[in-house]
Amino acid sequence: MRWNERLYIKDLVDKIGETHTLYGWVQFTRKSGKIRFLGFRDGSSIMQGVLVQGETDDATYEMFKDLRQETSIKMTGMVQQSKQSQYKVEMLVKEIEILGTSEQFPITPKEHGIDFLLSNRHLWLRSKKQVALFRIRSTIIQAIRDFLFENHFIQMDSPILTRSVGEDPAGLFGVDYFDMGTAYLAQTGQLYLEASIAAHANVFCFGPTFRAEKSKTRRHLTEFWMMEAEMAFFDNDDNMDFQEDLIKYVIQRVLDRGEWYLGHLERDPEVLKQVLGPFKRYSYSEAVEYLQSKGSEIKWGEDLGAPEETLLTDDSPVPAFVYDYPKEVKAFYMKENVEDPRTVKCSDLLAPEGFGEIIGGSQREDSHEKLLTRIKEMDLPVENYEWYLDLRKYGTVVHSGFGLGIERLVGWICGVPHVRETIPFPRLMERVTP
Amino acid sequence: MRWNERLYIKDLVDKIGETHTLYGWVQFTRKSGKIRFLGFRDGSSIMQGVLVQGETDDATYEMFKDLRQETSIKMTGMVQQSKQSQYKVEMLVKEIEILGTSEQFPITPKEHGIDFLLSNRHLWLRSKKQVALFRIRSTIIQAIRDFLFENHFIQMDSPILTRSVGEDPAGLFGVDYFDMGTAYLAQTGQLYLEASIAAHANVFCFGPTFRAEKSKTRRHLTEFWMMEAEMAFFDNDDNMDFQEDLIKYVIQRVLDRGEWYLGHLERDPEVLKQVLGPFKRYSYSEAVEYLQSKGSEIKWGEDLGAPEETLLTDDSPVPAFVYDYPKEVKAFYMKENVEDPRTVKCSDLLAPEGFGEIIGGSQREDSHEKLLTRIKEMDLPVENYEWYLDLRKYGTVVHSGFGLGIERLVGWICGVPHVRETIPFPRLMERVTP
Repeated sequence: MRWNERLYIKDLVDKIGETHTLYGWVQFTRKSGKIRFLGFRDGSSIMQGVLVQGETDDATYEMFKDLRQETSIKMTGMVQQSKQSQYKVEMLVKEIEILGTSEQFPITPKEHGIDFLLSNRHLWLRSKKQVALFRIRSTIIQAIRDFLFENHFIQMDSPILTRSVGEDPAGLFGVDYFDMGTAYLAQTGQLYLEASIAAHANVFCFGPTFRAEKSKTRRHLTEFWMMEAEMAFFDNDDNMDFQEDLIKYVIQRVLDRGEWYLGHLERDPEVLKQVLGPFKRYSYSEAVEYLQSKGSEIKWGEDLGAPEETLLTDDSPVPAFVYDYPKEVKAFYMKENVEDPRTVKCSDLLAPEGFGEIIGGSQREDSHEKLLTRIKEMDLPVENYEWYLDLRKYGTVVHSGFGLGIERLVGWICGVPHVRETIPFPRLMERVTP
Repeated sequence: MRWNERLYIKDLVDKIGETHTLYGWVQFTRKSGKIRFLGFRDGSSIMQGVLVQGETDDATYEMFKDLRQETSIKMTGMVQQSKQSQYKVEMLVKEIEILGTSEQFPITPKEHGIDFLLSNRHLWLRSKKQVALFRIRSTIIQAIRDFLFENHFIQMDSPILTRSVGEDPAGLFGVDYFDMGTAYLAQTGQLYLEASIAAHANVFCFGPTFRAEKSKTRRHLTEFWMMEAEMAFFDNDDNMDFQEDLIKYVIQRVLDRGEWYLGHLERDPEVLKQVLGPFKRYSYSEAVEYLQSKGSEIKWGEDLGAPEETLLTDDSPVPAFVYDYPKEVKAFYMKENVEDPRTVKCSDLLAPEGFGEIIGGSQREDSHEKLLTRIKEMDLPVENYEWYLDLRKYGTVVHSGFGLGIERLVGWICGVPHVRETIPFPRLMERVTP
């Protein structure tokens, strides 16, 4: 049998009454009188196997007692209808062959502490909620890419090892690079995307990003995935419109294809359906006024922290943009706002329900002179940015872009508050294994 | 106008006779009598702008002399048919507005040395051949992903910062990881994918990979992109069948959507069409015999190097698998071949035309005992592999997987011999900028 002719649980819906063989793992076993049940997972879904004395081979019926959580098996039987499973099927088992034993699988249905679970991440991934999370994460990632390709974006992978630092030089991991001194693990591919728009107009990169920050909040990982997009001839209004369209496209995809898994996460799809309405947009100044009216002590000029982000969105069913922040709290490459030069043309997109910032974006400074001034004002090494400044010397254009943090997006869509669960193998200040 | 209502060259094919405005860059200018021509690139494609005295505004006609290579412009005019361009259009220019000047763009149509070009990579990307290369690279990457998603694979991103080393401990970049000692930049995500198959059966990761090798060949980068796939219940024959299907799918996609750009690369599509036939398959022993018959001095037990790979495939229009290599030249995790325990169940896929290995794959050792023995034999630190060994304790299954190097694949498909051109910002032993 060729690899693509093999059957999985997902393929059985139109095979009722037929006898087939599947390969997978035992999730649990249960007895009820003379009937034996097992939960069976094959990587495409989960269904029930039913063993009935007389119908099931005697040897298999006897061997049922040897099945443990996570025993791998080959299972043959007749496909039957069942109301409970994802594909509405179960199997009346004829024969089971044990492929790999499993004694005392460490992650049982009882509660475990988070450290234990993270130390056993390689096994924890098999749990029902974790399976659901990564089905949805994978769906989200491909939805983002499909949206970009449907809109004629070109993927331009940005380098990880770099000397040109985008944002926070303090939070960089360094690497000895042959005889050339220290290279750093990139925090952003933005500068490289800006170099690519003159060739392809609309480009993106999608890769791992690193922050050597000593943060232990539920929103921080030292290694996370980010999709960054950069668009020639987009101002920051276009940028926000584009981001809003992208997020709605992703939500719609999850509703279309991921509803079964949202159920496993106890995430109400109705909450996500509301996100399809228009997003809110506050200027930074409006946001500060609104926050003050709700009792915050924030003053104009200060950055918004997690408490302010939560306060701004906690009674909103849709995400909110905050745009035109004060120059002092934002990065050097953001374009000065001509209508109010204390501010820059940028925006953060805040998810509702206290999930906080999921996108940071801006229009980029396209004037060579102003960009050079900003680099000097911020005491950045000009020689590392010569090539970036070149982009303003040879046919500079209005352009904008943004970075979307995948783990925070997945956390919000799935209703999982701590980002450590939303990436397969999280890297935290105190954790770099398994 | 909303961002998605904007027109690009690619949208003009059914707008003949209409007047539209486009934004982009001047590639070149040329005069012929009273007619003025400019090459115009907007990131979607290239077309010609034609200025005719009397038809074109006088001010624009005058200003033509100020246009330089890479000047950014806003151009308004009437769309006309043209045989030469990708979308069969050109523009009879009414008006041009200069957005960003460009004096003495460094990369002119004359020949430049490779060091100069790599140092100006941020500008070199705008050249016609480079634009074509990255259109095709982006097409290839999404084709790979589409194939995987059509076959129900789940993306499971593997960590970059790790302690569990897959292949060559000597070629690792190290990073100081907070108070936890040294972490390494991963050379493979395979071990993590193996942990994920029990949850999702068929999984992949697709990210940057690092090799601190002191190699200066045309096939080596210190940072490159790799797609790795891992499949539960696949033996190495399934693995080869799957790889062959994947490569053909990608080639077909490039033929369907990238033929225009293959032309810019002077790559004959007929050569690629031949790849759609059945791939060759040699066992390692057959390959050695064949090589010896062609004059090679290789002896059984030695690894195949670049010269042997070239000799094996240089008169073949299709790629060739070499399978079942001697255990000594391959990694610890490959499954011993029961029919000949001197060998392991693995395969390399060699591209034709001397492009060499593009895929390395194997069936994995699924016996806890044998895997532990191999780890000890190879003097690897067992404590770093405890979690990996766990996977053989709890429901082990037959499984296989492989890694596909994107830059080598792009190089072969595009007919570009040196991988440094096939990634946007190459990292080489002596180069970590721009």
